[in-house]
Amino acid sequence: MTRMAGWGGFFFSLLNYKTEKYVIAENKRIGILFRLYQLAVLSYIIGWVFVVKKGYQEKEEAIQTSVITKLKGVTLTNSSETGLHLWSAEDYVIPPNGEQVFFIVTNYIETPNQRLGFCAEVSIQKKGGISLSLEAALSQESLLSLSGIKTGSCLNSTGTCEIHAWCPVEYSRRPAEPLLGDAENFTIYIKNFIRFPKFEFSKSNVLETSDDSYLKSCSYDRENHPYCPIFRLGDLVSWAGHDFQDMAVKGGCIAIRIEWNCDLDKDTSQCNPQYSFTRLDMKLNNSVTSGYNFRYARYYRDENGETYRTLYKVYGIRFDIMINGQAGKFSIIPTIIAIGSGVALLGAGAFACDMILLYMMNTSSYYRERKFEIINFKYD
Amino acid sequence: MTRMAGWGGFFFSLLNYKTEKYVIAENKRIGILFRLYQLAVLSYIIGWVFVVKKGYQEKEEAIQTSVITKLKGVTLTNSSETGLHLWSAEDYVIPPNGEQVFFIVTNYIETPNQRLGFCAEVSIQKKGGISLSLEAALSQESLLSLSGIKTGSCLNSTGTCEIHAWCPVEYSRRPAEPLLGDAENFTIYIKNFIRFPKFEFSKSNVLETSDDSYLKSCSYDRENHPYCPIFRLGDLVSWAGHDFQDMAVKGGCIAIRIEWNCDLDKDTSQCNPQYSFTRLDMKLNNSVTSGYNFRYARYYRDENGETYRTLYKVYGIRFDIMINGQAGKFSIIPTIIAIGSGVALLGAGAFACDMILLYMMNTSSYYRERKFEIINFKYD
Amino acid sequence: MTRMAGWGGFFFSLLNYKTEKYVIAENKRIGILFRLYQLAVLSYIIGWVFVVKKGYQEKEEAIQTSVITKLKGVTLTNSSETGLHLWSAEDYVIPPNGEQVFFIVTNYIETPNQRLGFCAEVSIQKKGGISLSLEAALSQESLLSLSGIKTGSCLNSTGTCEIHAWCPVEYSRRPAEPLLGDAENFTIYIKNFIRFPKFEFSKSNVLETSDDSYLKSCSYDRENHPYCPIFRLGDLVSWAGHDFQDMAVKGGCIAIRIEWNCDLDKDTSQCNPQYSFTRLDMKLNNSVTSGYNFRYARYYRDENGETYRTLYKVYGIRFDIMINGQAGKFSIIPTIIAIGSGVALLGAGAFACDMILLYMMNTSSYYRERKFEIINFKYD
Repeated sequence: MTRMAGWGGFFFSLLNYKTEKYVIAENKRIGILFRLYQLAVLSYIIGWVFVVKKGYQEKEEAIQTSVITKLKGVTLTNSSETGLHLWSAEDYVIPPNGEQVFFIVTNYIETPNQRLGFCAEVSIQKKGGISLSLEAALSQESLLSLSGIKTGSCLNSTGTCEIHAWCPVEYSRRPAEPLLGDAENFTIYIKNFIRFPKFEFSKSNVLETSDDSYLKSCSYDRENHPYCPIFRLGDLVSWAGHDFQDMAVKGGCIAIRIEWNCDLDKDTSQCNPQYSFTRLDMKLNNSVTSGYNFRYARYYRDENGETYRTLYKVYGIRFDIMINGQAGKFSIIPTIIAIGSGVALLGAGAFACDMILLYMMNTSSYYRERKFEIINFKYD
Repeated sequence: MTRMAGWGGFFFSLLNYKTEKYVIAENKRIGILFRLYQLAVLSYIIGWVFVVKKGYQEKEEAIQTSVITKLKGVTLTNSSETGLHLWSAEDYVIPPNGEQVFFIVTNYIETPNQRLGFCAEVSIQKKGGISLSLEAALSQESLLSLSGIKTGSCLNSTGTCEIHAWCPVEYSRRPAEPLLGDAENFTIYIKNFIRFPKFEFSKSNVLETSDDSYLKSCSYDRENHPYCPIFRLGDLVSWAGHDFQDMAVKGGCIAIRIEWNCDLDKDTSQCNPQYSFTRLDMKLNNSVTSGYNFRYARYYRDENGETYRTLYKVYGIRFDIMINGQAGKFSIIPTIIAIGSGVALLGAGAFACDMILLYMMNTSSYYRERKFEIINFKYD
Repeated sequence: MTRMAGWGGFFFSLLNYKTEKYVIAENKRIGILFRLYQLAVLSYIIGWVFVVKKGYQEKEEAIQTSVITKLKGVTLTNSSETGLHLWSAEDYVIPPNGEQVFFIVTNYIETPNQRLGFCAEVSIQKKGGISLSLEAALSQESLLSLSGIKTGSCLNSTGTCEIHAWCPVEYSRRPAEPLLGDAENFTIYIKNFIRFPKFEFSKSNVLETSDDSYLKSCSYDRENHPYCPIFRLGDLVSWAGHDFQDMAVKGGCIAIRIEWNCDLDKDTSQCNPQYSFTRLDMKLNNSVTSGYNFRYARYYRDENGETYRTLYKVYGIRFDIMINGQAGKFSIIPTIIAIGSGVALLGAGAFACDMILLYMMNTSSYYRERKFEIINFKYD
C-alpha cells in the first residue's frame, strides 16, 4: 500500500460525491425536539436577522454633514439704564455667519462707558441657591476681583479692595424678565446637507421645489411640512419640554438632532430626516449646571483717542445642531456571514441531540452500537 | 448498562477519534456539481472577501481630525458710494481665527452711518425668478419691515410705512459684478491632522520637510505636490465645477473633502489624503437654494457718545472642510468569521446535493437504503 | 418507486432523528490531536472573542457630543509702545462664545492708528532657521507687499516700493517674552455632554452634585477629581509634554481628547471620560509647521468720520477639544456569529484529521475501506 496509491485514490475519488452515512433514530421525541430546534434557528435567521435587523445590509455610520443656519426676526429692548436697543440678527446671533453651533441673545447686562482705571471691586451679591454654583463654574462673579488686578489697598471697614480694571465694574443684576422675550417668535432656517461616502449617497433637508413662495412662507411640521426647515424659536424650546420665557432669563443650551436612518435598498424618498429636541444644560433632578452666558465688549475711541468700551454680559440660548445617521445597503458579505453562522448552529444542535441519545437514555448503549462502528488499528 | 458505565464509556471514548462514516455515491454528475459548488465558495472567500474586500481586517471609521486654515491675499475695492476699501485676510475671512468652516467675502452691500431712528421702510425691489426664493428663506429682504418695528403710521398712497429702525435702511442692490473678484487669486493653507484612535495611528496632510522654501512657494497638485496644502480659491471653485466670478456674485458653499483611506497593514506612506471638491448650495436641476450671505455691523460712537454703525451685507463663499476616512488592519476575529461562515456554507451545499440524490432521482430509493441505516427502538 | 413515494418517505422521515453514522478510529494520536484542536478553538472563542474582545456586544462608534467651554482669569500687559492693557476672557478668548475649538491669546503685536494711505513696504526681517517656513505658510510676513497693493513707484537704492495699505504697516517684532505669560494660571471649564444614539445612552463629564461649592473650587485630577472639569492652562500644556512659557511665544495647537469607552452591560458609573493631551502643531523631529497666529483689527472713526484701526497680530494656543468614544452592549447577533464561526472551524479541523488518516498513514487504505461505503449506481 504505497503513498502513490494513496494519491491515486485521492484524485480518483475527487469525482465521486462523498456524503455522510446517516443512521435514522426512530425516536419521535428526539426527532421532534431537533425539528423544533431547526425551526427556531431558521426563524431567528429569517425573522430577526434578516427582516428586523436587516442583517443582509452593509452599514455606514460615518455620515458627512454640512449645516447652514439663518435667523430672522427683530426686536426692540428698553432697559432703564441704557435706553432703547434695536436687536436684529446681526446683533443677537453670535457668531453671525450661520454656523452649526450658534448662540441667540435673550437677556443681557450692559455696562457702558468702561474705561481702564482704578475703582473699588464690587462686593458679590449672593445669588440664591444652586443657581450660584454654575455661576461659579461658568462665570467670574464668584471672584469678582477676577475682573481686575488688586492694587493692594483695601478698606478694612468694608473689606472691599481697590482694583485696576475697566471701571465702572459690571454691577447690575441680571434682569428677572428676559429683555428679548420676543425672540420667542424669531425663526431659524436650518439647511442640512448630508452624504454617506461609502454609498455615494447625498441628500438635503430642504424641499427641492421650484416654487419660490413655499420656502418663504412655510413652517416646519412633522406631518405636513417635514421638508420645510424653518423653525420658530418658541416651538423648538417647547418641543424640548421647556418654557421659552423661563429659559430666556438665564439662558441654556438646546440640541437640535437631525437623524437620517436610510435604507438605501428602498427609494430615496424613504430616507427622511427625523428631528428631535433636547435641553443639554439641565439634568432631570438638578439644575446646578444650567444656564448659558458669556461676555463680549465693543471698543470705542473718544476724540482724544482714548479707548473706552461697552461690556455686554449676554444670557441666551445656544443651539447645537447634531446630525447623525446610518445607511444600510444590501451586501453579499454580511448576508453570507449571517447565513453561515446560522447553518453552523444547526450542527451544534445535532451534537446536543446526539449527546442525549448517546448518554442520557436507557437505550443509549443500543444506540451507540449502531451509531458507532469501531475501527481497530492492529498497528497501533 | 448503568448510567455510570455510560459515563465511563464517555470518558474513554474521548481519546478516540470519531469521524463521520461516509458513503461514496459514484455519481459523476452530482460529484462534479458538488466540486464546482465548493470551488465557487472557496473563490468567493479568497477572491472577494479576502483580496477585494480585505475581510481579514478590523475596520475603524471614527476618525479624529483637527483642521487649521489660513488665508493669504489682499485686494482693493472701489464702490461708488463708499469709496476705497482695502481687504486683507483679517477683514474678508469670517471668523478670522483659522477654523474648519470659514467664509470669504466676495461681494457686499455697505450701508454706512446708520443711526437708530424713524424712517420709511423701503419697498421691496423684486428680484427676478427663482433666485428670490432663497433670498426669502435666507435673507430678510422679502419682509423688509423685519429690519425694524412698524410704528403704525403708513402712507396709503404708496403703502410704505414708517418703522423704528437703523436709518437709513439698507437700500442698495447687490452689485452685479463681485467687488472682490480678485479673491480668485487668494490662497488657502489647509493643515489637517488626523488620528485613528483604535490603531493609535496619526498623520498630517503637510509634507514633513525641513526645507523652508517648499511650503512657502508650492501649490497643491494631485500628481506632483499631493502634500502641499496650499490652494488657489479660483482652482477650488473650478475643481468643484463652477466659475468663480459667477459664484462670487451671490456667494455659495463649497465642500472641501479630504478622504483618508488607509490600509495600515501596508506602509504609512501608502496612507494618503484624497481631496475632492463639491458645491453644496446648489442642486443639479434647480438653484433655488443657492447663494450665501449674512449681515454684520461695525459700531462707532460720535463725539457726543451717540452710537452709529455701518451695516455690511456680505455675499461670499463658505468653505466646509469635511474629513472622513477609514483605516483597516489585520485582526484575527473578522478573519475567523469570514472563514467560518464560508466553511458552514460548504455544509449547506452538501445538504442540497443530498436532497437531489435522495428525492429527485430514480435511483433515490436505492441510494436512500444505503445512505440511511434504520435504528428501531423497540423500547419506544 | 415513484416520485410520490419519494415525497411520502420524505414527510414521514421528518419525524425521525437523522444523525451521522460515525466510525471510531481507535487511534490515540489522531484522537488527542483532534481534542487539542477543539480545545484551542474553544479557548479562542471563549477567552479571546468573548472575554477579551467582548465579541458578544454590538458596538456603537457614532458618538454625539456637545461641548461648552468657559475661561476664567485676567491679566495686565504692559508693552513699551502701546502701554497698559487689561486682558480678560472677553478679550483673549476667540471666539468668546464658548465653543469646542477656541484660541487663547498669549502674545501679540499691536499696530495702532493705522489709516488707509500710501507708505513704504517694510523690508522683511529674516527670521532664523526653520521657524520661518511656517511663517511663510501660515502668515504673510514672507511677502509683506501682501499687506497692501504696490503702486509701482520703487526706490532702486533700497528696493523698497510704495504700497497702498493701512499705514503704518505692521513693523514690530514678535516679543521674545510672551506678553500674557500669566495665562498659565487661567482656568478652562469644559462641559462635555455625550450621547450614544443607538443605545439611547447619554452622560456628562460634570459631577452631578447639588453641592454648590464643589464646582466652584475644584480642579481636575485624574485620581481624585475625575469629574471636576476645570483645568489650569499651564497643566494642560505640561501634560501635553511642553512648557507653557515656551509655547506661549509663538503659539501652538493643543488637542484635548476626551475618550468615552463604555461597556453598557455594566453600571453607568463604569462609563467614565478619559482625558489625554497632545500637541498637534509639532512633529517629533521638526518644528517646521509649529506655531499659531492670526490677525484681527478693531475699527474706529475719528470726529471727522474717518476710519482708522488697530491691527492685532495675536499668537496663542488653540485648543481643539476632540471627543471620541465607543459603547458596547450585549446583542444576540454578534454572539451567534462568533459562536457559529467557531463551530464551523471545528468541522474544518475534523476534515484535516480525516485527510491525515485517509492519505498520510500506512493504515490509510484499511481505514478508508471502513470509513467509506461504496454505492455503485448501475444506472450511471
